[in-house]
Amino acid sequence: MDFVLGIDGGGTSCRAALAAPDGRVLARASSGAANIRTDLTNARTHIVEAARRAFVEAGQDPELLVRTPAVLGLAGANVGTYRQQLQAILPFRESRVESDAEIALEGAVGSGDGAIAVLGTGSAYRVRRGGVSRPVGGWGFQVGDQASGARVGRDLLEQTLLAYDGICEASALTREIMAVFRDNPEDLVEFTVSAKPGDYGGFAPKVFEYAAEGDVVARSIVSKAIADVEGALGALDLREGDVLCLLGGLAGLYAPLLAARYQPLLREPRGDALLGAVRMAARRFGTSVETVNG
Amino acid sequence: MDFVLGIDGGGTSCRAALAAPDGRVLARASSGAANIRTDLTNARTHIVEAARRAFVEAGQDPELLVRTPAVLGLAGANVGTYRQQLQAILPFRESRVESDAEIALEGAVGSGDGAIAVLGTGSAYRVRRGGVSRPVGGWGFQVGDQASGARVGRDLLEQTLLAYDGICEASALTREIMAVFRDNPEDLVEFTVSAKPGDYGGFAPKVFEYAAEGDVVARSIVSKAIADVEGALGALDLREGDVLCLLGGLAGLYAPLLAARYQPLLREPRGDALLGAVRMAARRFGTSVETVNG
Repeated sequence: MDFVLGIDGGGTSCRAALAAPDGRVLARASSGAANIRTDLTNARTHIVEAARRAFVEAGQDPELLVRTPAVLGLAGANVGTYRQQLQAILPFRESRVESDAEIALEGAVGSGDGAIAVLGTGSAYRVRRGGVSRPVGGWGFQVGDQASGARVGRDLLEQTLLAYDGICEASALTREIMAVFRDNPEDLVEFTVSAKPGDYGGFAPKVFEYAAEGDVVARSIVSKAIADVEGALGALDLREGDVLCLLGGLAGLYAPLLAARYQPLLREPRGDALLGAVRMAARRFGTSVETVNG
Repeated sequence: MDFVLGIDGGGTSCRAALAAPDGRVLARASSGAANIRTDLTNARTHIVEAARRAFVEAGQDPELLVRTPAVLGLAGANVGTYRQQLQAILPFRESRVESDAEIALEGAVGSGDGAIAVLGTGSAYRVRRGGVSRPVGGWGFQVGDQASGARVGRDLLEQTLLAYDGICEASALTREIMAVFRDNPEDLVEFTVSAKPGDYGGFAPKVFEYAAEGDVVARSIVSKAIADVEGALGALDLREGDVLCLLGGLAGLYAPLLAARYQPLLREPRGDALLGAVRMAARRFGTSVETVNG
């Protein structure tokens, strides 16, 4: 075998990395969304397209992909039979479909024990111990994803309206948000009618910024969010000496705010999810016996 | 003038009542949805249809509607210029468009001072003092409507997943909800992908039932909801001797749980929102000088 492929597919794009059997990355490429839950056929098309482009980027014949094994990390792969359906229609020599969290965990901590907390627009956790990995959270905006940017942003809009109604305290932050909506609560509500999690999440950095300045509403939202993160970390059952990587757009904001007992566990992630897929491919199908860059 | 009309229009149906100038109801009728925010033309059609049917029900010529004044209570009438747009195209002799909460308040407490808390799939509050009425809350499921059936139901599903993950305590109720979703959290999440507020609200009565039996998760959700109701009531600035009516499907469940200071204020509503619209029409356009049945 000459190559292995790592694929990281999500709702906005699909990335592929072509690597030598030892996991050394030769080329990267990307294509459109690979959402296996909403459009399996299109997801397959974009996965194959990203893989072919990676071959071309590396100066190789893309037809080689039928002789190349791949590890794919895909959002939704842990739900229902999407994984099996996709594996049946992929053209690679062999395909191993993992959840997006699994390749992110591998990318961040390698193949050994460790844990990740993904804190971005959504939130999710994953821990691996003795080779067995286990998810916590990540159930989505409506009934999960506590402490995610989307939930923090939505909390801010809710508190802003409660302050408008005189039910809760107003603050510099709620006044600024009201001004964003022309001091008209109906404009705010209109925004929420079609707002996606990412739209709510856009307000999250401002909440952290104001909390740092002592804004009472922002502090209350951030305190609740930190308690939510620590609650989920508690369910990961971390011990002294464990490795914990915070990932996602809010990682840097949460890290210094976590309780002292978590600080010694925190590590910078070794690499991203795509690199995690490559490493798993090299270990499973190639010549790497342990993590690359491990 | 021979008649006055009261209209109560909402997202699922439009009701009309034809009354004598003193407010005595002669006939009622209904038609389809009157959602002025999403479909003004269709709302007008259904409003006119309900009014014509009320004339027919009363054995009167529906063409008389052009000589009949009307008070209409419509969801969304307090937002933007929908009220003005609708008033311009209605065929009644004269049209007065109020918010749905205003006619509900009138129906419940008459034309004097008083307050309502609408606790159904959504939640909203309104207080009238010295003839001036003021809304509190009612901003919708995503960033408002605290203590509504939809929010209580959503809280239950969130707590159920937190219990599944071992982050929060499980209880008989969370175990029952997991069983509803075949003990598969992904089935629960799948439900939330397309769930409307009413779908979440369907779980609310069960939360109250289990709370009464001491279920720890249910009690915690209900305690939070009661605090939310009392927070909103606080913003209504109620005083000794004021009248407070709880309306909506959860009214009977919340009433006995409110703090002792609210118990002396609670009254059964005099009538429904449609009767409120009729009373306002009789007072404004007819011969009634005070509330009917007042």
